[in-house]
Amino acid sequence: MVKKDSPNTAKPPAPKRVYFDWAAAAPFFEAKPCAHFGNPSSLHSEGRSAKEALESSRKRIGTVLNVPPETLYFTSGGTESNSIALFSNLTRNLSSSSYKGRVISSLAEHASVREAMITIEKMGKLTGSIKVDSAGRVTPELLDKALTQYTDIRFASIMSVNNETGTITDIAALKKIIKKQTGAPIHLHCDLVQAIGKIPVNISAWEIDSASISAHKIGGPRGIGLLYSRKPLAEVFYSGGGQENGIRGGTENVQGAAALADCLEEVINVKDFESNFLKAKARWEKLITSLLGMKRCTIIPKERAAGDDRFSPYILQAAFNDIPGEVMARALDDLGFAVSTGSACSSSSPERPVLSAMGVEEKLRIEGIRISQGDATTDEDIDALLSAINEVLKFL
Amino acid sequence: MVKKDSPNTAKPPAPKRVYFDWAAAAPFFEAKPCAHFGNPSSLHSEGRSAKEALESSRKRIGTVLNVPPETLYFTSGGTESNSIALFSNLTRNLSSSSYKGRVISSLAEHASVREAMITIEKMGKLTGSIKVDSAGRVTPELLDKALTQYTDIRFASIMSVNNETGTITDIAALKKIIKKQTGAPIHLHCDLVQAIGKIPVNISAWEIDSASISAHKIGGPRGIGLLYSRKPLAEVFYSGGGQENGIRGGTENVQGAAALADCLEEVINVKDFESNFLKAKARWEKLITSLLGMKRCTIIPKERAAGDDRFSPYILQAAFNDIPGEVMARALDDLGFAVSTGSACSSSSPERPVLSAMGVEEKLRIEGIRISQGDATTDEDIDALLSAINEVLKFL
Repeated sequence: MVKKDSPNTAKPPAPKRVYFDWAAAAPFFEAKPCAHFGNPSSLHSEGRSAKEALESSRKRIGTVLNVPPETLYFTSGGTESNSIALFSNLTRNLSSSSYKGRVISSLAEHASVREAMITIEKMGKLTGSIKVDSAGRVTPELLDKALTQYTDIRFASIMSVNNETGTITDIAALKKIIKKQTGAPIHLHCDLVQAIGKIPVNISAWEIDSASISAHKIGGPRGIGLLYSRKPLAEVFYSGGGQENGIRGGTENVQGAAALADCLEEVINVKDFESNFLKAKARWEKLITSLLGMKRCTIIPKERAAGDDRFSPYILQAAFNDIPGEVMARALDDLGFAVSTGSACSSSSPERPVLSAMGVEEKLRIEGIRISQGDATTDEDIDALLSAINEVLKFL
Repeated sequence: MVKKDSPNTAKPPAPKRVYFDWAAAAPFFEAKPCAHFGNPSSLHSEGRSAKEALESSRKRIGTVLNVPPETLYFTSGGTESNSIALFSNLTRNLSSSSYKGRVISSLAEHASVREAMITIEKMGKLTGSIKVDSAGRVTPELLDKALTQYTDIRFASIMSVNNETGTITDIAALKKIIKKQTGAPIHLHCDLVQAIGKIPVNISAWEIDSASISAHKIGGPRGIGLLYSRKPLAEVFYSGGGQENGIRGGTENVQGAAALADCLEEVINVKDFESNFLKAKARWEKLITSLLGMKRCTIIPKERAAGDDRFSPYILQAAFNDIPGEVMARALDDLGFAVSTGSACSSSSPERPVLSAMGVEEKLRIEGIRISQGDATTDEDIDALLSAINEVLKFL
C-alpha cells in the first residue's frame, strides 16, 4: 500500500552538503579538454601529437615543481608511485648475493607504503621501521636512532604530511641526517600526496631521491599521479611495455597528464598558493580554537595548538568524548557534513595504525575523526561545521 | 628574413587524416559525465554515491560480459591487469618451500606479459614458453606439448587475439586440453585486450580463470581497464590500500569505470556487434583481396586469406617488398594515413618478437606494418588507403 505523505510526515529537504573530506578526494576542477586520442608510442601524426601533449604536460609540471621534466613519470596515482619506488628494491642488485639493502619506513606511512613494506618483507628482503613521536613525526633523533640500529639501510620511505593528522615532517632536516652517514648512500623516498599544493614543498632543496603525487587530492581526475625520481630508477621491478622511460608500462594517460598539469599550475601558482595557504590557516585556527573550547573535544595529537605551524592547515584529527568516530561521522553526514574516520584507504579496517604508532590511547583512536578542508572551503563552512558538531554533542 | 609565400611555394593543405591504428588506441567515444567526486572508500554521502556509481558500472559490465560483477576488478589498463594476474604467482604458496608452480606463456604475447615473465623469472620462479605456429597461434597440440614438457605448471598466459597479426587463438579448445590434465589445476589467464568488442568473446563458456580488458582500445578513456578473475586471486602480489577487494590498491577511478561501462555497452550491444563485425569483415576482405593483388605485398602470416575466419577482421599485418615498415608507415603518414609498425608498446624496439616466434624471416619482419580498423572505418577509407599504398609503391 502506498502511503500518502501528509505535510507533517513529508521528508524534510536534504540538507545542503558541506564537504570536509578533501584529504580523501577533492571536488573536480574544470579540466580543459585534451583531444589527443593517439597512442604516444605510435610514430604517426596522431601518435606524435599525443606524445607532444604528454611531454608538454611533463614540462609544465617540471616548471611548477622546479625539477627537470625528465625526472617526472606519470603513473595511475599515489599508490602506484609509492609502490614503483618501494618495489625497485626487489630487483636491486638481485645478482649480487652479498647485497642486503634494507628498506625502512616510518610507522606513520600511508596504507600503500605500509602494504608495500609487507610485500617486500614477504619477498625475503630486509625491512625495518622508523619510530614516530607522539605527533606522528619522524624527528632527526628518531631517524638517527634507526640509522644506528641498522647499518645496511639503502632505502627509507618517509612521508611529508601525514594523511590522518596533518603532521608535517621536516624532510630537509632528515635528509641532512642521511647525508651525514658514511656508508653506502640511502635513497630517500617521500610521499608528497597530502603535501603538494597544501604546504610549501621544495623537492630540489629537500634533496629527496623520489616522491609521489596524486591528482585527485588536488582536484584532478582519478587514475593519474606522478612519480618524481631524481635519478632514473635503473632497477625498477617491472617496466611493462617500456613506457615512461621504462619506469611505468601501459599506454600513457595523455588526458590525465594534461589535467594534472592544469591542477598543479592552479594550486601551486605562487601568488595564489601563499594567500590560499594563509586563508586555510586562518580558517583552521578558528576551527581548532573553537574545538579546544568544547569540553568533550580532544585534538589529536594533544600537543597541536591553534595556528600550530608544525601541522598542515588542511587536515585535523579530533576526538569527541564517548562518541565513536564512526558514529560522529554518521551523525555529521546526516546533517550534511562529510568528514571521515581515518584514511579512506584504511576505512575497511577498524585499526588506526598511524594513531597507534603515535601512542594514542585506544579510546581516543576509536573516537578520532578526520576533518580536512580545501581552498574552496569558507569561513561559513567552518561556522556551520562547528554548529553541527555542537548539535550532535547535544543529543549524543 | 620572412619569406613571402608565392602561390607556387605555399604549403599544400594538410591531407585529411584517415586513421588505421585502432589497435594502438581508438578515437574517443563521447563519455557521459560522471560527477561523483567522492572517494568510494569514504563512508559519507559523497563516498557512498561514488561507491554506488562504481558498483553500478561493475554490474553493467557484468551484464554485458555475462559474468558475475564480483569477478570484475577495475585497474588502470590492460598492462596492469596482466601484471596483477601474472604477479599473483610471486607470492602464491610462498611459505611452502616444496611448491614450485611454473608459469608459462605463449611466445606471441603482448609486451606487458613478456616483460612480466622476465620479472617473474628474475624473482626466482620457474617459467616456460608455449610455442606458436606460423600464424602466431597456440594450437591444442602445441599446448599439449608444453604441458608434457613441464609437469609443474600452475599458470598459463595465452592471448585471444594477437595485437600484431589479428590471429585468433581458440581459447575454449585450449581450456579443454588443460582440463584433461590429471595433476594440480592450471590457472588459464587470457589477454582479451584486442578481442573484446572485436570478435565474439564468451568468458564463461571459455572457462578462463582470469582475463584482461583495456578501455582505450575500444574508445574509452586512457587509464582504466579491467581484470576478470573467476575466483578471488587470494594471493595477489600487492594489494595497496585494499581497494577492489584487495586486488588493486589506489583510489578507484569512478569516472573511468563509468566510461568503460558506457563503452562496453556500446561495442558489445548484441545487435550492433553482429552487424559491425560483418561490416568490418567485408571491409577487411576487400582490403586483403586488393593487397594480395599487389605484387610487392605479402600478408603476414602468408597463410591468411581474404575472409579468413581464423583472424580478427580488425587487425592486419602486411609487408611490402624492399620497403622497411618504418619507411612505409612514414610515407603513408605523410599522405594522411596512420598505420603502425608492430605494437605501439614495442615501438621503441626494432625487434619483432611476435613475428620471430612465428618464424617470419628477417626481411619480412623489417618490412611488416600493422593496419588496424574500427567500427567507424568506412569502405571509402579502405579505398583511400589502397590508393595511398599504390601511390607509395610508385615512388619507393
